[in-house]
Amino acid sequence: MTDRKIYKPKPVSGFPEWLPEIRATEQAWMDHIRRVFESYGYTNIETPSVEVLDVLAAKGEVDKEIYVIERLQKDADDKSDARLALHFDQTVPFARYVAQHFGSLTFPFKRYQMQKNWRGERPQIGRAREFYQCDIDVIGIDNLPLHFDAEMPAVMFDAIAGLGIGRVQIRISNRKIILGLLEHLGIEDKSFVTRMVDKIDKIGPNGVRALLAENNQITETAIDQILSLVTIQAAPSNLDPLLSVKTHNDLMKQGVDELLFVLKSLMHLPDEAILADLSIIRGFDYYTGTVYEAKLLDMPEFTRSVGGGGRYADLAGQYINKNLPGVGISIGLTCLFDVLHHHGKIPAGRKSPTDVLVLLPSEEGRDSATRTAALLRRRGMNVELFHKSAKIGDQMQYANKKDIPYVWIPPFTDEEPHKVKDMRTGEQIEDVDPSIWMLT
Amino acid sequence: MTDRKIYKPKPVSGFPEWLPEIRATEQAWMDHIRRVFESYGYTNIETPSVEVLDVLAAKGEVDKEIYVIERLQKDADDKSDARLALHFDQTVPFARYVAQHFGSLTFPFKRYQMQKNWRGERPQIGRAREFYQCDIDVIGIDNLPLHFDAEMPAVMFDAIAGLGIGRVQIRISNRKIILGLLEHLGIEDKSFVTRMVDKIDKIGPNGVRALLAENNQITETAIDQILSLVTIQAAPSNLDPLLSVKTHNDLMKQGVDELLFVLKSLMHLPDEAILADLSIIRGFDYYTGTVYEAKLLDMPEFTRSVGGGGRYADLAGQYINKNLPGVGISIGLTCLFDVLHHHGKIPAGRKSPTDVLVLLPSEEGRDSATRTAALLRRRGMNVELFHKSAKIGDQMQYANKKDIPYVWIPPFTDEEPHKVKDMRTGEQIEDVDPSIWMLT
Repeated sequence: MTDRKIYKPKPVSGFPEWLPEIRATEQAWMDHIRRVFESYGYTNIETPSVEVLDVLAAKGEVDKEIYVIERLQKDADDKSDARLALHFDQTVPFARYVAQHFGSLTFPFKRYQMQKNWRGERPQIGRAREFYQCDIDVIGIDNLPLHFDAEMPAVMFDAIAGLGIGRVQIRISNRKIILGLLEHLGIEDKSFVTRMVDKIDKIGPNGVRALLAENNQITETAIDQILSLVTIQAAPSNLDPLLSVKTHNDLMKQGVDELLFVLKSLMHLPDEAILADLSIIRGFDYYTGTVYEAKLLDMPEFTRSVGGGGRYADLAGQYINKNLPGVGISIGLTCLFDVLHHHGKIPAGRKSPTDVLVLLPSEEGRDSATRTAALLRRRGMNVELFHKSAKIGDQMQYANKKDIPYVWIPPFTDEEPHKVKDMRTGEQIEDVDPSIWMLT
Repeated sequence: MTDRKIYKPKPVSGFPEWLPEIRATEQAWMDHIRRVFESYGYTNIETPSVEVLDVLAAKGEVDKEIYVIERLQKDADDKSDARLALHFDQTVPFARYVAQHFGSLTFPFKRYQMQKNWRGERPQIGRAREFYQCDIDVIGIDNLPLHFDAEMPAVMFDAIAGLGIGRVQIRISNRKIILGLLEHLGIEDKSFVTRMVDKIDKIGPNGVRALLAENNQITETAIDQILSLVTIQAAPSNLDPLLSVKTHNDLMKQGVDELLFVLKSLMHLPDEAILADLSIIRGFDYYTGTVYEAKLLDMPEFTRSVGGGGRYADLAGQYINKNLPGVGISIGLTCLFDVLHHHGKIPAGRKSPTDVLVLLPSEEGRDSATRTAALLRRRGMNVELFHKSAKIGDQMQYANKKDIPYVWIPPFTDEEPHKVKDMRTGEQIEDVDPSIWMLT
């Protein structure tokens, strides 16, 4: 063993990996988010980790940060393979999936997807090269009721509020409002304005004013109107600021009406959970109506949005000759987890899922202890039988090291009863029946 | 929409993808297996999808079927990256993980891992290029009690028996028995003999006899002794065939004793669940003691073993200067699922996880219906609110199309009560309280 060659492994930058007790928390988060998604009737799909490069390219230019995969050595006769690449998000694979299986799906199609994605960016805290995203989308054929625009913030709120990282607020706008105003103002380069307004969170209204002023196509009056629009906020309990927006054209009016519909459908949530905020833009021109961003109110360490999304006009036009409008949200799980972990805000879970350690009194008692463990297991508990007959102290020690809350002491002689000890309180129950006893 | 260019996607051979109702079954399988693993106290870890190629190569030659990944375009200044490849199993990443995090783990370390793996093999039914495996291993430092050799078959039995694919049998042997006999017989090329014996399931004892006879190092008497040993089988209820094995040396005796210990520890399982079968070899010389194979007794379509594993002398010698013996099993989930699906043996799950569809009586009734849906959801049910006020018949139709078992009919006027309809039986309950009613 002494002179063998050893390759000492190191972490690979951008590919996070957790110790078991941290992974337990990540797993609990993912279980919770999945439960919430399913509680609203979203069904799971999982696509392969790879797509044909042509699929990723169908939209136009392909990102150079995409990872392509290739066999270390190709067989000489293996010419069949199209070039494959790891997907960098779940939207492109989902669009491809809907187009490919169109005839077998039921619409409106509500799906969730929680997979790893890969992007060869320069790694930093909160920006990994391999990362989980948790997405839901609803897709309709030709049209999709506004009902789903109103469902998204409720799902996003339930999903994030249950993670135990403080208060979350879903901020909502409708891009039709600002786009309608820019139409009315005769501003051609709408993308420029929305890109600048998108920075308001970082640089404030005056910063945005300065940036807009650099473009001489935009008059000062126009800037005033833009800024007074995008600084409007309204809670569901008081929609007045929104009701008093002056709508100059149909697009603006439609935007305000849609936003009001969404807000009114969210009255059952805590008031603080929802905020209409007309500065919410969500970068991409992909979004055509309602847009969302989720903010953590009690985690100043996490400066960006936990997730967001919006309404889009057509999911899969590049793959199928159907008009498939949709609305969706995405939670950047690994990003959030990584940043909070870096700041020591991720509580470690238990090192082991074991609820009860059954002691092994002696080799002679093995069969009986095995049956006790199996009985507790059948009753829904996670149970380990200690792996050798050792001193009681050593067996107890193992439970402590592994954060196992209960130790079960089976009879060491025929006369003794079963006993159970709560390792957290030290309390011991002296005569206990394994077919009745419950975890507390 | 008519003259746009459309890229029509096709399935990628070897990368399985399921419709939602089939994915629901795969997900239910994975949930069940995870629950069983945790019920025995195994903790989850997840490693990145990639390893540095040097890690994969640390054992010696690297498989040409490995997929390497590479950015589509590398930045000119990006020289830091080691060459990365997708892992082809979970054993190598696990070994690397244990070496890397050695000081932070608690031993004996019991972990489970259920991830995708990639191997660029020629795809066929039951052999995918991207596939899930479900693995557990226990690792000790310097030694590992035989207790864990006995735990593996119980876990494997519980995991597979709960999938609803008929009876499963875990066949067990101990390689020390056959290796001890070959030692005694003075046969040098032990790997040749074990490789031939490994074929017994396919070609029968006479086939193996013929293959062994081709090697003139092996006498006919030796072949007789080998064949009479490897055709021994014993159920836990009758260990006589095993007790009467003539042990010619310490290695054989140790092998028989270990196997007897394992079988005696499995008395709490149904007798048919376990079979000692001395022909079980598990190809690799990696295994040093107990070996397992799981067979489906009621699925003749699935000819191979669902999973297997065994005891090994050292997990991570190539990465760390420690002696880490272990024992583990692996269930080839995608392989099994793919073959059974191909033969129509995978029952489709529901198209949607929704338990209850709450009807939307009218736009005026939206807030009240939303609250009813939220209440049912808080009480643990998966609930959709219908997405527009449409004819009752159309709303019911949606529940039918999506296999939703219950339709909730909230009051259409103030005087009416809540009603609920079981869509499977047609039965309707006329006056029902959403804060009390339960799914059945």
